[in-house]
Amino acid sequence: MIDFPNIRSLCQATASKIALLGVDGLGGVPHPRTGRSELETASLPNLDSLAQRSAAGVTTPVAPGITPGSGPGHTALFGYDPVKYLVGRGVLEALGLGVELGGDVVAVRGNFCDVDPAGALIDRRAGRIPTSESAPLAAMLNEIEVPGADISVHPGKDYRFVLTIQGPGLGARVSDTDPRPPDESPSPALALDHDSVATADAANAFVSAARYRLAGRDRANMVLLRGFSKAPDWPQMPRAYRLAPAAIAAYPMYRGLAQLLGMSVLPTGDTFDHELDTLERSFDDHDFFFLHYKPADAAGEDGDFDAKVAALEQLDQRIPRLLDLDIDTLVVAGDHSTPAVLASHSWHPVPLLISAPHTAGDGVEALTERACRAGSIGSVPASSVMMLALANAGKLTRFGP
Amino acid sequence: MIDFPNIRSLCQATASKIALLGVDGLGGVPHPRTGRSELETASLPNLDSLAQRSAAGVTTPVAPGITPGSGPGHTALFGYDPVKYLVGRGVLEALGLGVELGGDVVAVRGNFCDVDPAGALIDRRAGRIPTSESAPLAAMLNEIEVPGADISVHPGKDYRFVLTIQGPGLGARVSDTDPRPPDESPSPALALDHDSVATADAANAFVSAARYRLAGRDRANMVLLRGFSKAPDWPQMPRAYRLAPAAIAAYPMYRGLAQLLGMSVLPTGDTFDHELDTLERSFDDHDFFFLHYKPADAAGEDGDFDAKVAALEQLDQRIPRLLDLDIDTLVVAGDHSTPAVLASHSWHPVPLLISAPHTAGDGVEALTERACRAGSIGSVPASSVMMLALANAGKLTRFGP
Repeated sequence: MIDFPNIRSLCQATASKIALLGVDGLGGVPHPRTGRSELETASLPNLDSLAQRSAAGVTTPVAPGITPGSGPGHTALFGYDPVKYLVGRGVLEALGLGVELGGDVVAVRGNFCDVDPAGALIDRRAGRIPTSESAPLAAMLNEIEVPGADISVHPGKDYRFVLTIQGPGLGARVSDTDPRPPDESPSPALALDHDSVATADAANAFVSAARYRLAGRDRANMVLLRGFSKAPDWPQMPRAYRLAPAAIAAYPMYRGLAQLLGMSVLPTGDTFDHELDTLERSFDDHDFFFLHYKPADAAGEDGDFDAKVAALEQLDQRIPRLLDLDIDTLVVAGDHSTPAVLASHSWHPVPLLISAPHTAGDGVEALTERACRAGSIGSVPASSVMMLALANAGKLTRFGP
Repeated sequence: MIDFPNIRSLCQATASKIALLGVDGLGGVPHPRTGRSELETASLPNLDSLAQRSAAGVTTPVAPGITPGSGPGHTALFGYDPVKYLVGRGVLEALGLGVELGGDVVAVRGNFCDVDPAGALIDRRAGRIPTSESAPLAAMLNEIEVPGADISVHPGKDYRFVLTIQGPGLGARVSDTDPRPPDESPSPALALDHDSVATADAANAFVSAARYRLAGRDRANMVLLRGFSKAPDWPQMPRAYRLAPAAIAAYPMYRGLAQLLGMSVLPTGDTFDHELDTLERSFDDHDFFFLHYKPADAAGEDGDFDAKVAALEQLDQRIPRLLDLDIDTLVVAGDHSTPAVLASHSWHPVPLLISAPHTAGDGVEALTERACRAGSIGSVPASSVMMLALANAGKLTRFGP
């Protein structure tokens, strides 16, 4: 935990290297027909062999029963209490689009929506208009200027966009514009503290101008704003852990999150193979690497059990490339479970493996939810993974005399 | 936990007796050649038989990945949050030497060290000079007097000593004198609050006098001071738990720690057999006994797997003497793991057994890391052991209406 008292005084820089392979949506639940989870169904010879010589356990992402979004799922893996260190929705959306966020930028998530001639909200998502339709609208709204702040509109997926509001001292304590019952029309953005008055003014000026420019359209003729937030000023991994950490992630959101924590974000390509190329190229330059593997989560979210099994098997085939690097401490973890039978993230504990010079197997035969639970790590909060990785790598000294 | 709200109101004095056998460094990790830990290798018929009729589990000393020193490892076992109740290094070193610490004594850990003619530090530990060489030096430094405080120098092992500084109202918020880069020479002790100004003055006067008296020597010609601390004013076990607790420990440090928690410290001899003699003799006088078994930790610290196995087997042979006493609730726990393959304390969970009138075995066949994890207690913080002991002994009443 980054908040363990005086954690920096316990950490020591060493030559050993840690790689944390974050398998998005790693955990699952049994398929009702077979009684076997995705991990139990997949053929994973390399991961199972790794499990047999690792310390094994399961992680609880946030708390029992709590299903994390991608933000808390990942911050926990890096040792940040996911309840305390919660990234705002606007910031997360902006990071997901690769928008750079300086300290004086307020990020806001926007929806195109439909209103009737009286202004009452009809559809919060404008019938989920496709990106091809929303992107030109976002480009048009990007031309809007408002007094007192610099604003930009960044196109997102389908009905989504991100609004950034930039100016010295702008606060982000601003209410969402979703209608507050009994109102049926979008509400004005309200400043919730003094510093945020100018932010709310800029947001409301933007909404007025957007409504004017979108008028006459049947669909996507209005916008909603929510999740006003600024990039947080959190403890930084390099200082707290005495590490030179690097993040290798094909998806922008995970790169953005890593940046918030002080990791070096290494340029890479679109696939996990590209990530491995990057790891091999930069292996000498850092002592901690976060690699992100997305396809298992994507298949789980789609509710496609077989696709998730296939995504796990494709990962397994790449494990030898990782092992060839002779990483001192290799951690295989997940930010949360994404059971295909739920077609969404879930609260279920996630398998964890730590392979290090002094791990010799716990009698756990496979990387599965059931097998890993019996390992020597037992069941731990996800925010403990970083401590265990540092300990196994010999980077954590004794606490107390 | 001693901090459970109004814990005293939940506790009740009863005739039942608890013995907590603290096996220092109890846990281990598998030997890479055999795949079996020290506990899994040792022949422990008595402890295994005890395991078969006990409630079993594993304890996490401080937090996953955190390796405790002896102080936090033990305070946790007695129900004290080891992060909140952290004993200072000077106090612990003094306790280890059997130095009595009143409330107005500041204890400081001292090293003899080597400096060059310009005063730059060459060796923090004076080449680890033997006790035979350092003890006369400590005796010489004990003659030093400084204005405004009573000071004493207590010889320690090898290059170590303890400095005590006594005087009304002396604070202990004083910085260590290890050189602060870019300085190469020992730093002055700096007061970090108003009450500690006189303490720092006394420490600096002592260092000046010590340097003068040690001048001309090639080795051990200077001293370093660190860990300024006072015996803490912590909640006391007798009051909090309504117990008459006694500590039986051959090593002074554990006796000193027990004293800080309000236990009666019973005079005993140098070995675990002496401790058992003491237990038998005083069995009627107390309702809680802490017995400390050191050899397993010492062998683990030495990296001697076979010696640790032998130390565990020697303990096993003494278990019948414990059982003959008909102790109502017998707890076998450890302050931390000391895996021989790491040759140091570690963060790994530690096996736990509680044998009480209403425990009848959990299907756990042996006192090992792997077997105990599957027991009914599961994995708990070490600071829960005391609650479980009290509960099993019928000394803990219902919480809430």
